[in-house]
Amino acid sequence: MAAQFIPAGHVTTPPGFRAAAGRAGIKPSGNPDLTVLVADPPAVAAGVFTTNRVHAYNVDRNRALLPGPLRAIVVTSGNANVATGEQGRRDTDELAELVAAELGCAPAAVAVAQTGVIGRPLPMERIRPVLPEVVAAASPTGGAAAAEAICTTDTRLKHVAATVELAGVTVTLGAIAKGAGMIHPQMATLLCFITTDAVVAAAPLQAALGEAVDQTLNAVTIDGDQSTSDTCLLLAGGNAAMQPIETVDDPRWPLFRDALAELLEPLAELIARDGEGATKLLRVTVSGALTAAEARLAARAVAASSLVKCALAGGDPNWGRIACAVGYSGATVDPARLGLAVCGTPLMAAGEPLSFDAAAVSAAMAAETVEVTIDLGLGEATGRAYGCDLTVDYVTFNAEYTT
Amino acid sequence: MAAQFIPAGHVTTPPGFRAAAGRAGIKPSGNPDLTVLVADPPAVAAGVFTTNRVHAYNVDRNRALLPGPLRAIVVTSGNANVATGEQGRRDTDELAELVAAELGCAPAAVAVAQTGVIGRPLPMERIRPVLPEVVAAASPTGGAAAAEAICTTDTRLKHVAATVELAGVTVTLGAIAKGAGMIHPQMATLLCFITTDAVVAAAPLQAALGEAVDQTLNAVTIDGDQSTSDTCLLLAGGNAAMQPIETVDDPRWPLFRDALAELLEPLAELIARDGEGATKLLRVTVSGALTAAEARLAARAVAASSLVKCALAGGDPNWGRIACAVGYSGATVDPARLGLAVCGTPLMAAGEPLSFDAAAVSAAMAAETVEVTIDLGLGEATGRAYGCDLTVDYVTFNAEYTT
Repeated sequence: MAAQFIPAGHVTTPPGFRAAAGRAGIKPSGNPDLTVLVADPPAVAAGVFTTNRVHAYNVDRNRALLPGPLRAIVVTSGNANVATGEQGRRDTDELAELVAAELGCAPAAVAVAQTGVIGRPLPMERIRPVLPEVVAAASPTGGAAAAEAICTTDTRLKHVAATVELAGVTVTLGAIAKGAGMIHPQMATLLCFITTDAVVAAAPLQAALGEAVDQTLNAVTIDGDQSTSDTCLLLAGGNAAMQPIETVDDPRWPLFRDALAELLEPLAELIARDGEGATKLLRVTVSGALTAAEARLAARAVAASSLVKCALAGGDPNWGRIACAVGYSGATVDPARLGLAVCGTPLMAAGEPLSFDAAAVSAAMAAETVEVTIDLGLGEATGRAYGCDLTVDYVTFNAEYTT
Repeated sequence: MAAQFIPAGHVTTPPGFRAAAGRAGIKPSGNPDLTVLVADPPAVAAGVFTTNRVHAYNVDRNRALLPGPLRAIVVTSGNANVATGEQGRRDTDELAELVAAELGCAPAAVAVAQTGVIGRPLPMERIRPVLPEVVAAASPTGGAAAAEAICTTDTRLKHVAATVELAGVTVTLGAIAKGAGMIHPQMATLLCFITTDAVVAAAPLQAALGEAVDQTLNAVTIDGDQSTSDTCLLLAGGNAAMQPIETVDDPRWPLFRDALAELLEPLAELIARDGEGATKLLRVTVSGALTAAEARLAARAVAASSLVKCALAGGDPNWGRIACAVGYSGATVDPARLGLAVCGTPLMAAGEPLSFDAAAVSAAMAAETVEVTIDLGLGEATGRAYGCDLTVDYVTFNAEYTT
C-alpha cells in the first residue's frame, strides 16, 4: 500500500482543480445535472473510453483531444446525448464552446461527458443560461457537489482522494465516478474523472491509466450491458514540485501507476455495490491462473453470471453455477484442478465437491460483501472482478425506465 | 417451407424409434426423471455439445461415440452429474452398461445425457432397479412421455415432428428438447434429441446438424449462462426406402438440412418462450449485415441484454438499449446507417431517432411474441435470435434453487 487515503477526499482535493454543479432541468427530478471541472493550469490528459460501436459523439471528440492540455470537463447527467443525430453533435460542440468562452480558452481544451437516457435531444435552451454560472462558481471545494451532480440512478456518492510519495515528493490524486446501470466496461466505466497534481508526461500518464483501469474499473460488471458513453479521464495538472515523469522507465512511474490502481479500487467496489437494485458487493478473486488477463476473465464471468447473481441475492451457496461460469469464461481451465470457496468456506477442491454446512454458508452470504475465491491450480497469476447481486428491484426498476 | 409438420409429433414419430420414461426419485418432486430412447436398428449419429470447459463427463463420452451406430440414449433429469468427480464418471458408465445389458448391445452404443443440479452424486441405488423396466417399456408411442421426463424447470413440453420429401421419398424427422435456465448455447442447447428415418451417412448428417443448429438452437439465449451439459444428438435410423445421402453434394442434402432447420426453429422458440420466469418470446431479426454470422451476433446481443429484457417485461419501448446492444455485439456496425423497429413501428432510421407513439408501442409490447427488427444497412445478410423477458420471477426462482 503506497497510497494514503484522504477521508472524504474527492476530485478537487489535489491542488490545481476547481469544480461546481448546477441545475439545468435535464433530470426530471430537478436534481443537479450540470457539472464543470476546471484545471488551473491546463492539464495533461489521459483517457479510456467505451469500445461500443454505437457510442456518444463526445467519446470520439474527447479521444481526439487527448493528450490535451485540457482546461475543463463539462458533464451533463440525465441525458446521454447518444443516437441523437446531427443535432446531438452540434449540441455537444456548443457545450464546449460555452465553457471555453467563459474560461477564455479554445473549445478544444474542453472535454464533454454525458450520461442518461439514449435517443432524446438535449434541452439546450435550459442549459445555455445556467452553464456560465456554473463555470463562474467553480471552486476548490466543489468536488463533493460534482460527485453528486454526475450521478443518475446511483444511490451512493463515489469519490476518493489519496496521496503517494514519489521519490520524496508527495503528490495527491482525486477521483469521482458514477455507475449503477449499463455497466460492463471494456475500456472504462461510465464517467470517472481523476485529477492529480503530479507532473507526468502524456505517454506514461496514458500507460498508467490503462493499467490501473484494467485492474479496477474494467473489472466491474453490473448487468453485462456495455454503455455507449463510458469515459474515464485523468488530468495531471502539474502543480507538484517535482521533475516530470517523462517515460514509463522512470522509477517513480510504477509507484504512480500502483497508487492510481489503489485509488480506483474502492471506486470500482463502490460502483459494483451500488449496482441498480443491488444489496451487496460480490468480490471474485481468481488465483492459480496462467496469466493475469485470464484470471480477470474468469473472475468477470463469475461476477457477470445471472445465475450466480441470483444465488447471491437469495443466499444460496449454489457453487455449481460458479464452476460453470469459470468453465465458459474463456480462461484456460482444467476441471480436475479447480477449487473454490464462498465466504471463506471451501466448497470444491481439485475438481471434487466437498461436504459443507449449507446453512452456515447461506448465513455468511447475508453479509454486505460476499467473497468468492477460485483457484484454477494452473499458474501463479491472480485477478479480481467486482459485481453485485441480481434482485427483483433491478428488474422492476429497469422494466419502466423511460415510461 | 419444405417440411410438413405433424400435429403432436415427437421423437418416436419417425419409424424405427421407441421410448419410455420412469420415476427413479432423482427429482425431489417424484416426477418422471429417467428416459430411454431406443433406435431399431442402431442409428448413425451426429451431435453438437457445450463448449464450456467445465462440462459433464457424459459430453466427452458422447462425443467419442459419434458417429455411432448408437442403439440408445439414456437421460437422467434432476441431477446433471457434473463436478461429481470420479464417482460421477463411474455412475455415467454404469448407466450405459445397464441399458446395454438389457438391449444386448455394447455399452459404447449407448449415449448418456444428464441435466439438473450440479455437484451432487447421482442416486444410483434408486436408478438401478428402475432402469431395466424403463428399457423394457420402450415403445413407438413413448415419445410424449420422453418429452415430459427430460424436463426440469420447463413449464411447456417441447416436441415436434415433420416430414420432408427427398427426391420422391418422404422421410420423417422428430425431436424433443428441454430448456428453461442456464441457456446460452455455443454449440447446442441443453438436451435436444432428434430422430429420422432418412438414410444419411455420418459426414453429411453432422454437417446438416451443425448448420441447422447454428440457425436455431444456437440462436437462443435465456440468461447468458452457458450450461455444462448442452447436448443435441441426431439419430438417423435408416428405415426409409431411399438411397443413402453419402455427401453434402447430394442434391437431397440441402433439402434435408433445411427441413432439419425448419424442424428446430419452433423448438428454439419454445425454449426461449419457456425461459425461467419468462412471460413472452423476444424474436430479434437483423438484416443488412455483412455476413449471416454477424447478423446472428448482433441479434443475440440484443436478445441477451439484461436491460432490453427488463424493458420487454415492462413494455418499455426503450430503443436506446437495443441500439446499445447492437453496438457492443462485435458485429460490424455503422451507427449512421442503423435502423430499428419494435412490434413493426420504426423507432430509428439511418442513425436518427424517429418520433413515435410511445403508448401505442408499449401496448403492442404486451403481446406474447415481441418482434424487434434491426437493419444494419451494410449488406444483404440476415440472422435471428430468440430470447425472453427478464422478470421478477426469474430472480425469485433462481435466488433459492438449491436451498
